[in-house]
Amino acid sequence: MMNFYVDNSVLSTVISELHKVCTSRSVIPILSGIKIVASKNGLTLIGGNSELFIEKTIPLEINGEQIVEVIEEGSVVVLSKIFSEILKKLPGKVQIQADMKESVVIKSDEVVTKIPGFNADEYPKLPDVHSQKPVELTLGTLKEAINQTIFAVSKNDTKPVLTGLRMEFEKGKFICIATDSNRMSRCEVQISSELIEAFVVPAASMLEILQVKDSDSTSITVLHESNLLVMEIGNTKLISVLIEGNYPNTQGLIPTEFISSLTLNRKALLAGVDRACVFSRELKHNNVLLRLGDRTSITISSSSTEMGMIEERQEVMKVDGLDSFDITLDGKYLIEALKGIKEENIEIQFNGTMKPIVIKPAQSKTYVQLISPRRTH
Amino acid sequence: MMNFYVDNSVLSTVISELHKVCTSRSVIPILSGIKIVASKNGLTLIGGNSELFIEKTIPLEINGEQIVEVIEEGSVVVLSKIFSEILKKLPGKVQIQADMKESVVIKSDEVVTKIPGFNADEYPKLPDVHSQKPVELTLGTLKEAINQTIFAVSKNDTKPVLTGLRMEFEKGKFICIATDSNRMSRCEVQISSELIEAFVVPAASMLEILQVKDSDSTSITVLHESNLLVMEIGNTKLISVLIEGNYPNTQGLIPTEFISSLTLNRKALLAGVDRACVFSRELKHNNVLLRLGDRTSITISSSSTEMGMIEERQEVMKVDGLDSFDITLDGKYLIEALKGIKEENIEIQFNGTMKPIVIKPAQSKTYVQLISPRRTH
Repeated sequence: MMNFYVDNSVLSTVISELHKVCTSRSVIPILSGIKIVASKNGLTLIGGNSELFIEKTIPLEINGEQIVEVIEEGSVVVLSKIFSEILKKLPGKVQIQADMKESVVIKSDEVVTKIPGFNADEYPKLPDVHSQKPVELTLGTLKEAINQTIFAVSKNDTKPVLTGLRMEFEKGKFICIATDSNRMSRCEVQISSELIEAFVVPAASMLEILQVKDSDSTSITVLHESNLLVMEIGNTKLISVLIEGNYPNTQGLIPTEFISSLTLNRKALLAGVDRACVFSRELKHNNVLLRLGDRTSITISSSSTEMGMIEERQEVMKVDGLDSFDITLDGKYLIEALKGIKEENIEIQFNGTMKPIVIKPAQSKTYVQLISPRRTH
Repeated sequence: MMNFYVDNSVLSTVISELHKVCTSRSVIPILSGIKIVASKNGLTLIGGNSELFIEKTIPLEINGEQIVEVIEEGSVVVLSKIFSEILKKLPGKVQIQADMKESVVIKSDEVVTKIPGFNADEYPKLPDVHSQKPVELTLGTLKEAINQTIFAVSKNDTKPVLTGLRMEFEKGKFICIATDSNRMSRCEVQISSELIEAFVVPAASMLEILQVKDSDSTSITVLHESNLLVMEIGNTKLISVLIEGNYPNTQGLIPTEFISSLTLNRKALLAGVDRACVFSRELKHNNVLLRLGDRTSITISSSSTEMGMIEERQEVMKVDGLDSFDITLDGKYLIEALKGIKEENIEIQFNGTMKPIVIKPAQSKTYVQLISPRRTH
C-alpha cells in the first residue's frame, strides 16, 4: 500500500535520470525496476545496474514550496522504462497509488494509467557502507578533474583496470589518472584531507557524477570500503563497484626533462589538428604530422598519395631547446587532449621521435598529458 | 583550369546542402561528385543522385557585397564528401584552383589543401527541359501542402507509385495527395493557372523543396516534361524523375456524409493520443480506442492485459448526429494526421466501426485526411 501526490516536473526529471542507469534487459524483471519509497520525509527512488546504483530523495518541500504530499507510507517497484515514459507525458501534479497486489495507478487530471508493480521487499538491498574516513571534495573541482582525464581511459576490455578512472589520495592531494597504454592524462588537486588511498572506478560511474547538477550541492562526500565507493551529493547517492587489478605506475612515465619545448595557442592548434584530420575517414587512421622547422612556426599536416593533402603553418609563441623536430601523432588523441585543457596557451614537450610527447597548460605543474607517437614505417 | 575566390560561409552552406543529395557510394566515382563551374556570372554547383539533381548558383554579389571573384573561368568535379568536410573546417575566404590534371587546391589563410578532381566533361549532362506550360506557385503555399500530406506516403516499395507525392493540376486548382492504402491525406490549393496535368514525384524530391529557404525566393516555377519535373526557386533548380504507374482514384474514397461528427481541440487530442501510445513499444502496435459515450466527452484509451492501461476523458466541443460510437485507430497515424493540421480545432467524422474516419480542420473543405480503423478481432 502506498499513496502520495508529487509535482511531476520534479519526479519525472529524477526518474529520467535513474532510468538511464537502470539495467535495460534482465532475466529478473525487478532488476530493471525503480524502487519507490514514500515516507513521512518524502520520496526515495532507487535504480541501477550491476556496477552502479543511484538513490535519489525528493524532500516534502523545496525552497518552501510543497513538492510531495504523502497520504499513505509504503513502497513498490515499477519497471523504469514504462514509468519514465508515462511521467514524461503527464502534466502538473500526479497521484501515485499502489494496492496490496502491487498494481500501480498514476493519476493526473483526467488521465488515469495503471501499470503492474513488484513487491519492494524483492528488490536487492543496497550495502550499508560505513567508512572511517569519508573525504569531502568540492563538486566543481571533482567534475573538472574527471573532465580533464576520463577521455583517456581504455575503450576495450583486454585490461579491465584501464577502463576505469584511477583515483589516488595522498596527504593533502587528490589525483585523477586515466590511460589506455597509448596516452595518459593526470590531474592533481590540492585538498585538505590526510587520507592515503587509491582505487579504480568504472568510467561510467564517474560520468554519472558529471550529470549531477551543481545546484543540488557544491560538495561531494566520498566513502570507500572494500570494493565499493559511495558518493553523496545533496539528495543524490551513488554506490559504485571498484575495478580490481594492478594499475600501472604512471608517475614514472612522465619525463622530467625535454629536448625541445614549444608554447602555442590552444584553440588555434585544436582547429588546425581538427582540419588535418579531414582525411582520416578515407585513410582509416588519424596520423597528423607536427613539424617544427624554425623558432617561429610549426607545420601541421596530413597526407596520402590517393586522397590528397592538407597543410598549415601556425605561429609558435616560444621555443626552448632544439628548434627542429618532427613527430607523427594520432590526431584524435591530440584533439581530445587539447579539449581537456581550459587554459589559453599550452606547452608541448618533445623528447625524441619515438618518445611520448607531453601536452600541458603553459605554466601548469598539476595537469599533464602524454601521447605516444604513431609508428609510420 | 579554373581559379576563383569565394566567401566560404556561402560556399560551404551550398556544398553541405548538395552533399546531402549526392550519391554516397557509386561504381563510377564521378557520380559521387559535385560539379563546379566558375564563369563570369559566378559559380554553378551541381550534385545529385539517380532520382534528383540539384543545381545551385552563387552570384558574384549578394546584396551589394562581393561573394565571388573569378580569376580564371573553368570547371572541375570534386568528391562531395571530402569537399564538404574540408570547407566546413576552413575560415573566411577561400581560393579554389584546378590545374590541367584536375588537381584541386583549396587555400584559406595559412591552410593549403590539395584533393584530386575529375574532368568536368565526364560528368553527366543534365536534361534540358522546355515545357510549354510552366506554372508559378507561391513557395510557402507549396511547402504547406507538402507538409500537410507527405507523411502519408507509403514507406514500402510494394506499390512504388504510392511512395511518391501525387500532384494534380486542375483549372484554377492544385492538389497534393499521399496515401499508403491505410490512410490518405489530400490538400487543395487555389491557383491562377489553367493547366490540367497530374504526376507522382518521389517523396525525397519533395522533401528537398522544404529545405530551400524562403529568403531565396517567394515563388517556385514548376515545369513538367515526359518523366521529369523541374522546379526553380531563386538560385536553386531541382530536376526530379517522376514515378510511373497508375495512381488510385482517391477522390471517390472521401465520404460525403457521416453518421456522427465531433469538434475537438487539436492540441489536447494530440497530447492525449500521444499518451495513449505509451504502451505501444511493449504491445508492438499503436492501437488507440476513441469512444464517444455522450454529447460532452470522448474517452481515449489503450490497454493490454500484461502491461496495464491508460485512459483519459476529453471535452467535445460539438457533436452532430449519433452521440455514441467507438473506433480503434493506429495511434501513430492519428498523431501524424493531427500534426499535419495547423488550425486550433478539428472535426472527426465517423461512418461506422469498419469505415475510415475523416479528420480535417473544423470548417475546412480543402484539407482532408482519412484513416482506416484497425481490426482488433
